[in-house]
Amino acid sequence: MKIAIINVTGYTGMELARLLHQHPGVELTSVTGRAAAGKKLADVFPHLGDIKLAITAEPELEDVDLVFSALPHKASAEAVMPVLDRGIKVIDVSADFRLKDAAEYERWYDFTHPAPELLREAVYGLVELNRPQIACARLVANPGCYPTTAILALAPAVKAGLIGPDIIIDSKSGISGAGRTLNLTTHYPEAVDNVAAYALGGHRHLPEITQELKALAPSLSLSVTFVPHMGPMTRGILSSCYAWPEAGKISGGERGLRQLYREFYRGEPFIKVVDVPPQTKQTWGSNLCLIHPTIDPRTGRLGIISCLDNLVKGAAGQAIHNMNLMCGLPETMGLEALPIYP
Amino acid sequence: MKIAIINVTGYTGMELARLLHQHPGVELTSVTGRAAAGKKLADVFPHLGDIKLAITAEPELEDVDLVFSALPHKASAEAVMPVLDRGIKVIDVSADFRLKDAAEYERWYDFTHPAPELLREAVYGLVELNRPQIACARLVANPGCYPTTAILALAPAVKAGLIGPDIIIDSKSGISGAGRTLNLTTHYPEAVDNVAAYALGGHRHLPEITQELKALAPSLSLSVTFVPHMGPMTRGILSSCYAWPEAGKISGGERGLRQLYREFYRGEPFIKVVDVPPQTKQTWGSNLCLIHPTIDPRTGRLGIISCLDNLVKGAAGQAIHNMNLMCGLPETMGLEALPIYP
Amino acid sequence: MKIAIINVTGYTGMELARLLHQHPGVELTSVTGRAAAGKKLADVFPHLGDIKLAITAEPELEDVDLVFSALPHKASAEAVMPVLDRGIKVIDVSADFRLKDAAEYERWYDFTHPAPELLREAVYGLVELNRPQIACARLVANPGCYPTTAILALAPAVKAGLIGPDIIIDSKSGISGAGRTLNLTTHYPEAVDNVAAYALGGHRHLPEITQELKALAPSLSLSVTFVPHMGPMTRGILSSCYAWPEAGKISGGERGLRQLYREFYRGEPFIKVVDVPPQTKQTWGSNLCLIHPTIDPRTGRLGIISCLDNLVKGAAGQAIHNMNLMCGLPETMGLEALPIYP
Amino acid sequence: MKIAIINVTGYTGMELARLLHQHPGVELTSVTGRAAAGKKLADVFPHLGDIKLAITAEPELEDVDLVFSALPHKASAEAVMPVLDRGIKVIDVSADFRLKDAAEYERWYDFTHPAPELLREAVYGLVELNRPQIACARLVANPGCYPTTAILALAPAVKAGLIGPDIIIDSKSGISGAGRTLNLTTHYPEAVDNVAAYALGGHRHLPEITQELKALAPSLSLSVTFVPHMGPMTRGILSSCYAWPEAGKISGGERGLRQLYREFYRGEPFIKVVDVPPQTKQTWGSNLCLIHPTIDPRTGRLGIISCLDNLVKGAAGQAIHNMNLMCGLPETMGLEALPIYP
Repeated sequence: MKIAIINVTGYTGMELARLLHQHPGVELTSVTGRAAAGKKLADVFPHLGDIKLAITAEPELEDVDLVFSALPHKASAEAVMPVLDRGIKVIDVSADFRLKDAAEYERWYDFTHPAPELLREAVYGLVELNRPQIACARLVANPGCYPTTAILALAPAVKAGLIGPDIIIDSKSGISGAGRTLNLTTHYPEAVDNVAAYALGGHRHLPEITQELKALAPSLSLSVTFVPHMGPMTRGILSSCYAWPEAGKISGGERGLRQLYREFYRGEPFIKVVDVPPQTKQTWGSNLCLIHPTIDPRTGRLGIISCLDNLVKGAAGQAIHNMNLMCGLPETMGLEALPIYP
Repeated sequence: MKIAIINVTGYTGMELARLLHQHPGVELTSVTGRAAAGKKLADVFPHLGDIKLAITAEPELEDVDLVFSALPHKASAEAVMPVLDRGIKVIDVSADFRLKDAAEYERWYDFTHPAPELLREAVYGLVELNRPQIACARLVANPGCYPTTAILALAPAVKAGLIGPDIIIDSKSGISGAGRTLNLTTHYPEAVDNVAAYALGGHRHLPEITQELKALAPSLSLSVTFVPHMGPMTRGILSSCYAWPEAGKISGGERGLRQLYREFYRGEPFIKVVDVPPQTKQTWGSNLCLIHPTIDPRTGRLGIISCLDNLVKGAAGQAIHNMNLMCGLPETMGLEALPIYP
Repeated sequence: MKIAIINVTGYTGMELARLLHQHPGVELTSVTGRAAAGKKLADVFPHLGDIKLAITAEPELEDVDLVFSALPHKASAEAVMPVLDRGIKVIDVSADFRLKDAAEYERWYDFTHPAPELLREAVYGLVELNRPQIACARLVANPGCYPTTAILALAPAVKAGLIGPDIIIDSKSGISGAGRTLNLTTHYPEAVDNVAAYALGGHRHLPEITQELKALAPSLSLSVTFVPHMGPMTRGILSSCYAWPEAGKISGGERGLRQLYREFYRGEPFIKVVDVPPQTKQTWGSNLCLIHPTIDPRTGRLGIISCLDNLVKGAAGQAIHNMNLMCGLPETMGLEALPIYP
Repeated sequence: MKIAIINVTGYTGMELARLLHQHPGVELTSVTGRAAAGKKLADVFPHLGDIKLAITAEPELEDVDLVFSALPHKASAEAVMPVLDRGIKVIDVSADFRLKDAAEYERWYDFTHPAPELLREAVYGLVELNRPQIACARLVANPGCYPTTAILALAPAVKAGLIGPDIIIDSKSGISGAGRTLNLTTHYPEAVDNVAAYALGGHRHLPEITQELKALAPSLSLSVTFVPHMGPMTRGILSSCYAWPEAGKISGGERGLRQLYREFYRGEPFIKVVDVPPQTKQTWGSNLCLIHPTIDPRTGRLGIISCLDNLVKGAAGQAIHNMNLMCGLPETMGLEALPIYP
């Protein structure tokens, strides 16, 4: 299998290159970049020194079986359409094919979607929920980092009808989630030893979260508040999700709840339902998502904590998981690395 | 005014010493410690090198006007009683006099309170709510760090009857909040680049939060979920508080809400109601608490963010604010330092 | 005394504003900035919220007694000349008046100095070495952060003729030293958990170091290697200086050496010669410089460690120390704050 | 091949377990610990959750081909002797077999070596210098983390006679190098945002460095000053080595020097001689050592920078490199992981 990455120069693109180079079932044959076009990958990214590829302005698609697009939204949709037209499978890690309703792109991303018909075809690439559709897809929309944590944390409870419509998602992200573009808020002296909430008026990952949770319980009139925070970590997202139990639906208390979660994720290679509060550092560099469902003993509310490495399970690792499925490779191939700790 | 600190060797004790040394209206004359007794303060804490005091095992109370106790809970109550008996005012920064109901100490702190009668007399030292009582008190219970953020964030809304009984408090604390005692969870390689929730079954600061909020709205059957998180900062707590509006109570939307908060805290020297999401780093080393009340435009829920430096406004600075009041000194004396940034 | 800051928007300018606002003997009356001109200081820098000044494009010099220029080099010299012409004293925190030889500006800074005659007049503002000249100066060149650590560490040994001409200075700086301008090397995810040497071919602070050390021992043919490193701290520089003893010059071994250092710095309010290796964190937010002279017991070489807060003693604090001297104020006024720890 | 780890519970032991589990040519069959004996590995170290082994008090050596001992010094020598007696190969990651002269253990480690005859037999496991001896060894002493950086940085210059006897090694280490044992200096709030020199009177890694460098140039009367520093990183060591050129020995200036280094390390899979200053973060999680030799253009001195991940190339990765050689496996097996960045 030959693989290309469009826009290797952001953090997700870099991480895709790292993981694909180490993947025994595929070969990375083309990487593109804009400002860095013409340079060797190794000169721009010393840690990728063993990958002997030059960065080109346009992808070299000859014989390529699958393309990852790591362009920003809007640019990605435009770059991806001709690739699909050549009959090459695409995994888009931008937001451009995640939402089913084209109008949402006007609302949240300020652009008119250039290919609304592809929105119907594209599969939301959360393997744990959409495995069979992904295996057959030619276009997969790789989920956002926050939505991956939130949907995985809430899906078992929503699907089983355990909770009512009110959901609070309070997420804490490391700074690589803001990307490689320079910004005063990610300038080291301003970002270190600091935590802040942002996007309180509405974050672009909210429609993705509600779309996927509603698909699990169409009759539930979900009312979701999602507040992201940024804190001084390189990698890692931890989401704390709060919800109200439906009377009589949870049997066996917290143990029963955890049992239900374990059943829901039985056999999933990258999900661990854990009995103690998980830590983002326990997932560093791995494709794991750790989930810890609890019940507040005083109020009966559900408090579900989930965490992962935002650049792996929240981006590049999950994308490769999708690739493995789409290409008929073993699901965990290239993704078995244990977390690096400490 | 002569001041003593019992147990100077923890982070709150150290910070009290630093602030009191720089306070123009008082003189620090005695500091105690256990393991460090007999040493000079400067030898144990090089940053306090200018304070020419020896650490003693017992406080030297001759001529002392006010004592801060920074002992751990249980030990503090016992140390404080004889000081009060000598007619010396006390500010206790442990939890030992914060709760009005002695039975709560059995429940949350696993000990039988030695002086339940003092619980009635002790004033909860949140100046913004209890200024007149503090001014007359001989025993002030300095609030916990998390409760300071949560109560200040919620008090205006609770007092004005804007919200219903359901409250979620999701707090993020820096690691100095866990104290100076060694622990694997605060060992640098394990704590850095990491965030985790803890105490999901109930944290000791919960009863304090509910007690004080209930006092503001006795008829409200509060149902509070409080989940603390620890993240890789030295100082700083940020609390994200979520609540449901009572129909028709908030007028003027988010602007109106902010206006109400500004009215509530009018004239308060250490509270800033801000229009953009605040950052913990903006309070570093200062006695400020920044509060940012918002309304989620989709669900109508209140999202109130507050932050402060846990060792200053969340501990030693707030204690000195109480001292100023109790001793008739100008309120802000010794506490005017601007935050140090970056 | 009325004071103005030209270019308040970098880290040194910000820190000057913070310290001057808290200084009891002066009043900050004018601050300038380029991109931020027209805004309130509080809107650009929330931590300076109590300073009620607008940022202007040009300084308002009416009645001003002294101006700090925190512009980048070259721009600073040009801005400073008309201020001096108006009879206003100037402290320049850029490099523009530090070097006595105008040709050095061609060599190291790539510009032709616009006022070489001022280079003779300007006093190098290291108080510990040039106190009387500073007190009479109308133009003081505030030392660079690295040179402050290196010169203070080496001056007693050089002056006393204890060491030969070979000196190695290996410095480790926090990231605020690189300023507030965005750069990939100071982007949080790339800067954190990372240390690197830079400028191995020659750093601009080298001529400053050699100039000042030579002035102390004109007959010594100094041969200095200076290698700066950047590491993941916000503030702080630690310099490790290595030198070779002149035979028979040090009496009393390491104790004697330390005694000589203590004599040299006797009465200096901001220098502490310490007996255990100092830590940058012990100086955070203060104007202290800690110095620890040692002798390698196996090779007899001198190893002298010095550290300070690069934004205070290495920049703004030292500048205010100079201001106090130039204005006849008590030397330590406004600079007595203890370090904040942890 | 079956492998055992004695004392899996420190950072080197943990990292050995992680790397061995992922190594395709060996099977980890036994891990020991003291306090953790009886627990499952996954319960103590969640990131190693996929390794289904219980921690035992004593190693299970049946059918084991090679044992890693990660015990502290002194305990390690005692534990290793009976293993060797059973005919099992040993890689000792403590210091117990690194020094050839038993008297050095009295001097530097305060104990009488229990098996001085093994010191002669043991091979110092720096593959780049001792490959053939390691391949035949039954006992390999894995180098210390600092010595690995220093010796690799200096070996080409020393061996080629380029430099004189005077060497300064100024090293900067992340905090995992201090191990997993709790200590106030590695307590997060005290360690973060801090850098300090330590062991100025002599660090235990010094005799190792001089022993190995002397072996490369027996006639050189080396005079080495080694000063370690600790800074706020989890992983990573960067050593800055300074030396004086022998007249006329370096041809071609800095380019020639780099060429000589490239020749020296030609074919070495884990050494990269680089043209720009390397960063510790560029080695994170990998077995790479980056080396950057320079010549100070003003003084002619050599400045050689080297860096690596102290837990991989500086400990566990290097140990597995040794294992591969001793067991006839491909050298890079299990060690090909690219650095994780950022």
